[in-house]
Amino acid sequence: MSAAFATLSEFRALLAAAPGPDAAALQGARDRNGQLTKPPGALGRLEDLAIWYAGWRGTARPGLDKPQVIIFAGNHGVTARGVSAFPAEVTVQMVANFQAGGAAINQLSRAFGAEMSVQALDLDRPTADFTQGPAMTEAELVAALAAGWQAVNPAADLLVVGEMGIGNTTAAAAIACALFGGTPGEWTGRGTGVDDYGLAIKTQVVAEGLAANPDRDPLQVLRCLGGREIAAMAGAMARARAERIPVILDGFICTAAAAVLAQACDGALDHCVAGHASAEAAHRTLLSKLGKQPLLELGLRLGEGSGAALAIGVLKGAVACHSGMATFAEAGVAAG
Amino acid sequence: MSAAFATLSEFRALLAAAPGPDAAALQGARDRNGQLTKPPGALGRLEDLAIWYAGWRGTARPGLDKPQVIIFAGNHGVTARGVSAFPAEVTVQMVANFQAGGAAINQLSRAFGAEMSVQALDLDRPTADFTQGPAMTEAELVAALAAGWQAVNPAADLLVVGEMGIGNTTAAAAIACALFGGTPGEWTGRGTGVDDYGLAIKTQVVAEGLAANPDRDPLQVLRCLGGREIAAMAGAMARARAERIPVILDGFICTAAAAVLAQACDGALDHCVAGHASAEAAHRTLLSKLGKQPLLELGLRLGEGSGAALAIGVLKGAVACHSGMATFAEAGVAAG
Repeated sequence: MSAAFATLSEFRALLAAAPGPDAAALQGARDRNGQLTKPPGALGRLEDLAIWYAGWRGTARPGLDKPQVIIFAGNHGVTARGVSAFPAEVTVQMVANFQAGGAAINQLSRAFGAEMSVQALDLDRPTADFTQGPAMTEAELVAALAAGWQAVNPAADLLVVGEMGIGNTTAAAAIACALFGGTPGEWTGRGTGVDDYGLAIKTQVVAEGLAANPDRDPLQVLRCLGGREIAAMAGAMARARAERIPVILDGFICTAAAAVLAQACDGALDHCVAGHASAEAAHRTLLSKLGKQPLLELGLRLGEGSGAALAIGVLKGAVACHSGMATFAEAGVAAG
Repeated sequence: MSAAFATLSEFRALLAAAPGPDAAALQGARDRNGQLTKPPGALGRLEDLAIWYAGWRGTARPGLDKPQVIIFAGNHGVTARGVSAFPAEVTVQMVANFQAGGAAINQLSRAFGAEMSVQALDLDRPTADFTQGPAMTEAELVAALAAGWQAVNPAADLLVVGEMGIGNTTAAAAIACALFGGTPGEWTGRGTGVDDYGLAIKTQVVAEGLAANPDRDPLQVLRCLGGREIAAMAGAMARARAERIPVILDGFICTAAAAVLAQACDGALDHCVAGHASAEAAHRTLLSKLGKQPLLELGLRLGEGSGAALAIGVLKGAVACHSGMATFAEAGVAAG
């Protein structure tokens, strides 16, 4: 199918027209939660998660059987500036590894029963070095958003989007700084493992990118400082919203893509929950700006959707309890 | 089979003779971890978890296919003092709910592929009110430890023990206070949901229990202040150690049972990881005393092994990545 939009204006209109959760399903799920065989509130955040999920799925007693994981890969012109501990060739090598089933995300997708696919986005045509001007043209941005939009399976009942792109923590830092202000140093980190010298370069490169691209409209920020995989993640999350498919956010790069949507349209991330807090320090700042509390904090900093995929297990547990437990009446248990 | 011990002394001897992890498997797992297609350390705690698990399972590339969940239920004489928001009859009602598949732990066990069983321990014969003297005789303690020991499937590759027992946060608080000192108020909480008045009673009851039972030998603390389900959890965790089956600790009551073993024998919990931090505040204190950092912090306070069962997903993810990922050499990816 073709994407539902052909221009950036049409994409903006879709964001603005996105549906909310089903109010009756939310209320039904809250009522059900109050009758389950446990003390009130004893399942903690699992209860809120299940109710939130039920609202988006439009039923008070949902299943969670068809999670989808999509990995988008892109290359970044800015890698020429030495912002990563790994060479840019690793992006295409890792795509092959995803396709062969050898990466972390393959194992996590299998462990949690998720359908996984990988979309390599013009790897032989890196985005432009954003210190010299916009990373993408508007046509390139729209194409990347559309690739993400089209990659979502409308029959999925949960979406995780992940990424691979050497240099993309630098792009994410630039996006976050452009959207939320602060200094470049507050948004840059060691990524896959740069040393002090590499970190200083990243910070300088982000500062140069912000100076070279003064437009602060969120989708223009995405175009000027982002990468194809970051735009595709945003497109996929927007499609999930249109289909009322809940999303688990991954780490810093995925969350930067999500932040573009949140700044472009109020409430655009209401269907998203934060899967984990990355060891990339700026991720926590970004989640806090978005009002999202992570489900897991296990020191991951891999990307690939790995932290979000791990959180599929938590959400599956929450939904299993909510939809599978007996009520006090069914079980003949005194309700205290 | 009969238990491997008939007296408390024999149980102590088994604790002292328990095996450690396999050094070669540990080293092999560390080596393998360093070759996997990810930046060093990028999987955070998952890497440490997988290596720890590999050491106990005795192979550098383990599977995690046979988790076992056992729920022990017991009744407490001290409930006559009004320490719980629920009546004691709820223990037997919830056992029926476990058997019928309607409780939270049933759903979580199914979601993570665990074999689950429930062991009701003399529910019609509550332990004695510990404010009047020891909760159990030595024979009763040994029988409960043995019930736990025997319930473990030696073919399991992971163990979660949970509990059901109205009043047992009071017993756990008394055990923790006896083992680690401090005031009763520091160890008591709202459990399934007592009000301020109920909390004051719990604190008073713990103080009376400690005064009535002055022996501070850890296994005597378990006998005098514990319950059958708490002792059975300790017995099961000891058996898991003997079989080199890793254990995920659950909440406050499970951790109190584990703390008895840790205080009775140095290193007795080396095969255990903390599954979650309960909303019962003293649980965090107890984990800190044991040097255990929880995997999850989601505000659960249900017991039943629910928090630990949820953490099975995290451990499964860790093991799946460790044992399933390609190495840099296998995948032809540049190692940075």
